[in-house]
Amino acid sequence: MQQGTNLPKVGSYNRAVVLEAIQASDGISRVQIAAVTGLTAQTVSVIVRRLLEEGLVVEDGSAPSSGGKPRTILRVEARAGYAVGVHFDPQELSFVLADLAGRPVARLHQPVRPGARPDTVIRQMATASRRILREAGVPDAKVLGVGLACPGPFDGAGVMVSPPRLPGWDRVPIEGLLREYTRFPVTVDNDATAAAIGERWAGIARSTPSFAYLYLGTGIGGGLFLDNQVYRGRSLNAAEFGHITVEPDGPECYCGNRGCVEAVCCPSAIEAAMRASGAGGRSDHADHADHAAICAAAAAGEPRARRVIERVAGRLADAAVSLVNMLDIDLLVLGGPALREVGEIYRAVIARAVSGRTLARRLHAVRVETSPIAADAAAIGAASLVFHATYAPRLGTLPSRQM
Amino acid sequence: MQQGTNLPKVGSYNRAVVLEAIQASDGISRVQIAAVTGLTAQTVSVIVRRLLEEGLVVEDGSAPSSGGKPRTILRVEARAGYAVGVHFDPQELSFVLADLAGRPVARLHQPVRPGARPDTVIRQMATASRRILREAGVPDAKVLGVGLACPGPFDGAGVMVSPPRLPGWDRVPIEGLLREYTRFPVTVDNDATAAAIGERWAGIARSTPSFAYLYLGTGIGGGLFLDNQVYRGRSLNAAEFGHITVEPDGPECYCGNRGCVEAVCCPSAIEAAMRASGAGGRSDHADHADHAAICAAAAAGEPRARRVIERVAGRLADAAVSLVNMLDIDLLVLGGPALREVGEIYRAVIARAVSGRTLARRLHAVRVETSPIAADAAAIGAASLVFHATYAPRLGTLPSRQM
Repeated sequence: MQQGTNLPKVGSYNRAVVLEAIQASDGISRVQIAAVTGLTAQTVSVIVRRLLEEGLVVEDGSAPSSGGKPRTILRVEARAGYAVGVHFDPQELSFVLADLAGRPVARLHQPVRPGARPDTVIRQMATASRRILREAGVPDAKVLGVGLACPGPFDGAGVMVSPPRLPGWDRVPIEGLLREYTRFPVTVDNDATAAAIGERWAGIARSTPSFAYLYLGTGIGGGLFLDNQVYRGRSLNAAEFGHITVEPDGPECYCGNRGCVEAVCCPSAIEAAMRASGAGGRSDHADHADHAAICAAAAAGEPRARRVIERVAGRLADAAVSLVNMLDIDLLVLGGPALREVGEIYRAVIARAVSGRTLARRLHAVRVETSPIAADAAAIGAASLVFHATYAPRLGTLPSRQM
Repeated sequence: MQQGTNLPKVGSYNRAVVLEAIQASDGISRVQIAAVTGLTAQTVSVIVRRLLEEGLVVEDGSAPSSGGKPRTILRVEARAGYAVGVHFDPQELSFVLADLAGRPVARLHQPVRPGARPDTVIRQMATASRRILREAGVPDAKVLGVGLACPGPFDGAGVMVSPPRLPGWDRVPIEGLLREYTRFPVTVDNDATAAAIGERWAGIARSTPSFAYLYLGTGIGGGLFLDNQVYRGRSLNAAEFGHITVEPDGPECYCGNRGCVEAVCCPSAIEAAMRASGAGGRSDHADHADHAAICAAAAAGEPRARRVIERVAGRLADAAVSLVNMLDIDLLVLGGPALREVGEIYRAVIARAVSGRTLARRLHAVRVETSPIAADAAAIGAASLVFHATYAPRLGTLPSRQM
């Protein structure tokens, strides 16, 4: 049932709305904040004064206004707070130290030892988080928390349940353990949702009300912002774009479905398609190429590799058309490590489909963009989880976690 | 950008939250309202007193409580207000007079004269709306408004733009004209979104936070409630479930895509599939059957018709799996006139797919239900549009219309 609200909630909600308006802009005046948020000039003025006092926001020069005196420009004070973002991929741990503006200040990558026990990996996360803070000279008092981006699925308490690519990680209380080992607040989310939150906080989706994030990694996932709110779904497992059916009679997927995007478009499927493309005729070294080599060959214009990637992009485009018709969004962001070298091939194929085959295309354009932070999207997003949990406007509904 | 809020908005929001909690229940006490809405007992008490004074709510007996005195049960006063719901289908106009509890009090069906000019049809809507009110003896003072459910797509002002099955209706200012001819407030929405709002206000989705409505009529559409809010998308054209790709190399769809749900599963596609199923061999009268006859035959167990309907249900099931994986909803409602006789065949096939092939199936069950008001869903939904526009809790965001 929809939740009611009260005065203290309204106060912190409006405060978050103002902070978000400042963060989403490249410098904004009080008058402009009032215009974009619908708040009165007086309310904006009171909230901004408090944000200035707390050091979360700074005045940064002035801009000419239409008549009258120049308007003071406000920006988020990037050095007011920091968060460590941890991206837990089955093969690798990525760490980013981000400032409050969402900019990465330091990075660290470490392999995950194959077969390592969960407790060992979580201790490794804690040690590396401490190390990146120490090397950057950020004191504990400035740390808002640690954000952790993991593969799903999650249960209602944010615990991974039988993650398909992480045997041994079923129902590990990762959030609690990482909190214990780091002694910082910890926020956990799905890797693709984290990447979407990163784009919203600091990336190309800053002021976009509704957008989808298509995350291409070892698997394929997604994240959703709908009407200015992250949408997580009933069990925190929305936006599983990897499990849109694109080939009804296609290969079986581990999820129990057939012909899923992931079963057809993930790196191992691309490797299999490359081998199959040479079948029945000559066989050459391309048949044994791994995903990275195939992408490099496609980017260099090698015809077989290029055909394989374009065919996969075509299937992703089919899913993107369904997605846009279902959610009528403004923007589709492509990100994740599997885009390396071939991001523009994917973007072009998907953009052509979305601009030519969606139902509402004559009513408004849907942008398709590759994330400029694609490779580190989940780690930067993980850091943004902390800022989002601390500062994003939410009102009248409890966070999904508390359902 | 997310909108701020203020005290008057909070007051009317909480009021709507309480009214919705009462309407969603089969009788609820003040204590229970506080529990489900998170509002304090005192806030609930003040709001309920006002709703009683206004006559929107009545006290209706009492229920035993755990210790202490029995609790007074509250219900919406059905006779406090009425709305006329109009469903504009290319072939037929359906009218429902609904009371505030969303129950149909009277019904009226009229054919649309083929080739009739828009102004003639809109005058027909107004005359019939007046007639249904007069015959039921509802005075103007009790009429909250007229709700109109139309085929999309819509522009940002709620005007139909090139509706594919309604040539001549491009950009007709239908809302304004119907307001002028009836002299009541008019609320227009997509037919499938209206049906979803009807299920939420008075049907099987009353207390479901996130659900999808799959509407099967001449075309195939849908509606979405996500996190307790109707989701309309950037241009009011979300939930176009008829344009999810289910056969990548399938027939062309008028929308510009190939193998859409609608191109494969709509009544005319079912008729074509029936003809094709007899091709190459014997030909009998079944090859010339219309959709209604095919559905009747399938319901009676005729094998060819049954196979055709089950195959179509299988394609809808593929789309439903994608939908559930994308939105992680609690409930999928099937409704619309094309379900007549074959609702249970569709429901069974789709329910089996959703419970066996979705990613989060081990975390929570997703109910698949046929709407008990399937045939009149859009008209009852149209009436509910008025109640929803008047009473649904919304806060901090402007209605999409005002973007």
